[in-house]
Amino acid sequence: MTVGNLSVEATASRSHSDLRKVGSHPDYWYPIAWSHELKPGRTFAGHFAGEPIVLVRPVEGDVFALEDRCAHRQVPLSKGTVDGCTVRCCYHGWRYDGSGQCVDVPYLGKGKLPNGVRSYPCFESNGIIFVWPGTAPAADPLAQIGHAAEPGYKSRRFGKIVRCHYTFMHENLMDMNHQFLHRRTTGKVTPRYLASRKGDGWMEVDYSFARPDQKPPLGETVIVGSLRGSARTARDLMTVRTDYPYQTLRMWTRDDKPVLSVWLGYTPVDAEQRRNRTFIVLSVRKPKIPGVLDLAWPVLAWFTDRVFAEDCEIVEMEQAAFDEQGADWNQEVFPPIRELRTLLRDCGNPR
Amino acid sequence: MTVGNLSVEATASRSHSDLRKVGSHPDYWYPIAWSHELKPGRTFAGHFAGEPIVLVRPVEGDVFALEDRCAHRQVPLSKGTVDGCTVRCCYHGWRYDGSGQCVDVPYLGKGKLPNGVRSYPCFESNGIIFVWPGTAPAADPLAQIGHAAEPGYKSRRFGKIVRCHYTFMHENLMDMNHQFLHRRTTGKVTPRYLASRKGDGWMEVDYSFARPDQKPPLGETVIVGSLRGSARTARDLMTVRTDYPYQTLRMWTRDDKPVLSVWLGYTPVDAEQRRNRTFIVLSVRKPKIPGVLDLAWPVLAWFTDRVFAEDCEIVEMEQAAFDEQGADWNQEVFPPIRELRTLLRDCGNPR
Amino acid sequence: MTVGNLSVEATASRSHSDLRKVGSHPDYWYPIAWSHELKPGRTFAGHFAGEPIVLVRPVEGDVFALEDRCAHRQVPLSKGTVDGCTVRCCYHGWRYDGSGQCVDVPYLGKGKLPNGVRSYPCFESNGIIFVWPGTAPAADPLAQIGHAAEPGYKSRRFGKIVRCHYTFMHENLMDMNHQFLHRRTTGKVTPRYLASRKGDGWMEVDYSFARPDQKPPLGETVIVGSLRGSARTARDLMTVRTDYPYQTLRMWTRDDKPVLSVWLGYTPVDAEQRRNRTFIVLSVRKPKIPGVLDLAWPVLAWFTDRVFAEDCEIVEMEQAAFDEQGADWNQEVFPPIRELRTLLRDCGNPR
Repeated sequence: MTVGNLSVEATASRSHSDLRKVGSHPDYWYPIAWSHELKPGRTFAGHFAGEPIVLVRPVEGDVFALEDRCAHRQVPLSKGTVDGCTVRCCYHGWRYDGSGQCVDVPYLGKGKLPNGVRSYPCFESNGIIFVWPGTAPAADPLAQIGHAAEPGYKSRRFGKIVRCHYTFMHENLMDMNHQFLHRRTTGKVTPRYLASRKGDGWMEVDYSFARPDQKPPLGETVIVGSLRGSARTARDLMTVRTDYPYQTLRMWTRDDKPVLSVWLGYTPVDAEQRRNRTFIVLSVRKPKIPGVLDLAWPVLAWFTDRVFAEDCEIVEMEQAAFDEQGADWNQEVFPPIRELRTLLRDCGNPR
Repeated sequence: MTVGNLSVEATASRSHSDLRKVGSHPDYWYPIAWSHELKPGRTFAGHFAGEPIVLVRPVEGDVFALEDRCAHRQVPLSKGTVDGCTVRCCYHGWRYDGSGQCVDVPYLGKGKLPNGVRSYPCFESNGIIFVWPGTAPAADPLAQIGHAAEPGYKSRRFGKIVRCHYTFMHENLMDMNHQFLHRRTTGKVTPRYLASRKGDGWMEVDYSFARPDQKPPLGETVIVGSLRGSARTARDLMTVRTDYPYQTLRMWTRDDKPVLSVWLGYTPVDAEQRRNRTFIVLSVRKPKIPGVLDLAWPVLAWFTDRVFAEDCEIVEMEQAAFDEQGADWNQEVFPPIRELRTLLRDCGNPR
Repeated sequence: MTVGNLSVEATASRSHSDLRKVGSHPDYWYPIAWSHELKPGRTFAGHFAGEPIVLVRPVEGDVFALEDRCAHRQVPLSKGTVDGCTVRCCYHGWRYDGSGQCVDVPYLGKGKLPNGVRSYPCFESNGIIFVWPGTAPAADPLAQIGHAAEPGYKSRRFGKIVRCHYTFMHENLMDMNHQFLHRRTTGKVTPRYLASRKGDGWMEVDYSFARPDQKPPLGETVIVGSLRGSARTARDLMTVRTDYPYQTLRMWTRDDKPVLSVWLGYTPVDAEQRRNRTFIVLSVRKPKIPGVLDLAWPVLAWFTDRVFAEDCEIVEMEQAAFDEQGADWNQEVFPPIRELRTLLRDCGNPR
């Protein structure tokens, strides 16, 4: 595929900031944990950009999120115990409620309680617990996570901590020319760039896919094949979208409903944001024949795990190169990726 | 337990120095190794605050201590061989006596011997080898290590390298409100602060202990139960003392002789003093019936190991929080611990 | 052995540069890989002083060497695939020829190809692939590697990444007084310094060896014994030479042809040059009776591996001492080593 108006100079950054040093903007909802990771009456130790965050799920009541350090001696509250709708530090037993207020020090008078800890707005939806790490008032909780809640779709949740800056994740997914990376897993695929659109805080790119000489692998057949019908179309259509700070990928074969819909969230873990926890919700449209998708699910899981592992390996190499070189030396030639880089820089956290 | 006159502001440090950056003062005797770690004719590689120190035990004669680097090419003398009352470097065979003087270079004329290495005052007592890392003339060797040498007591020696600043160890032991940490091991215990005293380079705090609703666990029964007699008193008494740079803990049930006496020494290992080697000598008064204590010893060992492991885990979390935050953010509300912090700051090594 | 005119002051460095911070001068040929490490149609990921270098062996044609980073997103080309006489990046499929020029971007017009990557002069000889990392025009490829190519010798190639600055390797080999280090492997050996010579970029030192009271170990007998003849001479002769940046060691028993000839190359791996990859070619003269040397080869391999392992352990301790002390505190008393240090400083890369 050839892009008409490519220019070969390296991207001149519009500002002086190095894209890999731009922080994720904290004034958004970020996924911190899968719901199943936090049992009733237990805590979960999460992070956003180096800030430790404890998630607490009372036996009865909603999940709440606090700074994961006791105000007293700074040890993690996540090591403590859940006591009704409060969490108690494991060391000297200081107790905090869901607003972060210290409500008990066992050896101290009630009128003299010390300052508490910070609390974070928090909600749980579609199997993910989100936290608002910023200082501004929270926006509404996300209405939907891809197609996870829609009837007619079956979803898979996966992901892991990837040792790279979140921007490498965005660029990886949006540049479909990287299909070469997956050639052993997906077979030869020829992506063709069709169009791109952008707006305030988002952009998206359309691609068509063709397989000139080969059959698709089993995993892909499972995902899209059964929905395509008997008359194979020449091209499948895909749209990759960055809706800051999330991404989606949708693929169509016939009608307006995507056959595949993927939602991705990237939560920076460490203060330098050289690691992110990637949360992926992959939703596949159920075919007409019931049970086919369930039967094929293990193959689909293997296939998507393998593609994700290949992506993780390459973006971690990009981060390693950045760490060695001390700066972003990328020489981007594909205009949509240049635009994406500008978008990520503009939406990010100036530091 | 409620302390009457607690104020809830964070400790205002009296000086500008961060307590976790105050070094152990070198003008004291510090434990470097257990006697059994240094066999006759062998060496032991120890450390004080980043300084490598080799202990040498000749087949005949007293242990001596030198800087653990050959003057020639700086490799550890502890890798060398013991040759009479000297140690010989493993590389080119340079030889040093107990004063650190170089007494032989095999390929060099006798009149032209190079400068030697530093030696350290050193003594061995009660199963511990102590070194004086400071520059001032040494004080007398310690007369006693807790009750280890007294008749009527049986002792246990244990400890390990703990990845935290030594001051966390002092604060941990002296603040008995941290019994909450050991609730699963010791059962519910209500400590009550009674009094504290202080003097030049030392302070101590008295506590009483009550078990309102429960039996003590087996390990504690073993330690104090057999000495208490049949008429159980309502309260046991405990005194925790910091006698810079050491600590002791003594517990009484009936008379003037403690039923339990613990001595603790903390030797900083690395130059930043973020690790310390903790040496513990725990002495238990023998009950009237002979053999009871020996029988119970394995239970006591398991119990004390477990309590120590819980303490190590929490102080290492405190150090980890310090490392992340870059400064000591402790918000202390218990007056004796505030006094202890001042004592440790005043006695430490200004850097 | 006593050296007559030794002075015992520490070496005063002639310049202000710390020898362990002097870089290997890049304007020489450096070994990067053994030939057998690079199969046809494959790549090899090497390094010189922090610069990643990919070696590429086309199925047909000569090995070539490029900067091991794709110009696009900086990921290693060594992860890619060999395509004729080009290498293709694994990520988006950019393709480079042996001169480093980018000859294809699959989704880009031919007239708009981006800049390529740096290429390095390269040659292969005697089982080693050499690269010229410097900027000046290359000198001729090395005519010979010790006695590896001479008839009448059998050679062994070994080595590994040693975690020390290359200068420790030179000093280790040239100071034969370090035979004390190998006492358990080689038995008691008394080296005697005889003479040294030097010139532009090189110096060499002669030693004699005597074994006053013992038989040599089996490994050494294998190497030199069968060539010595029945009348054992009192002394064997050895010459150690640094011919910047390489070293050789030759040993004679009877005539002009050395019975043992060792060639050593040290290639710095990381940017700080605290690790080097050591390449050793050890050539032994074949005795008159055919097959004896082949029979003895496993013993010789074991013996040389063990001596090398002892050397690696000690030089890594020297580097560890440097890392702790932050500077070179060596106190050298042996004049040839002082001269060697000056030579290495003068020939090195001023930074």
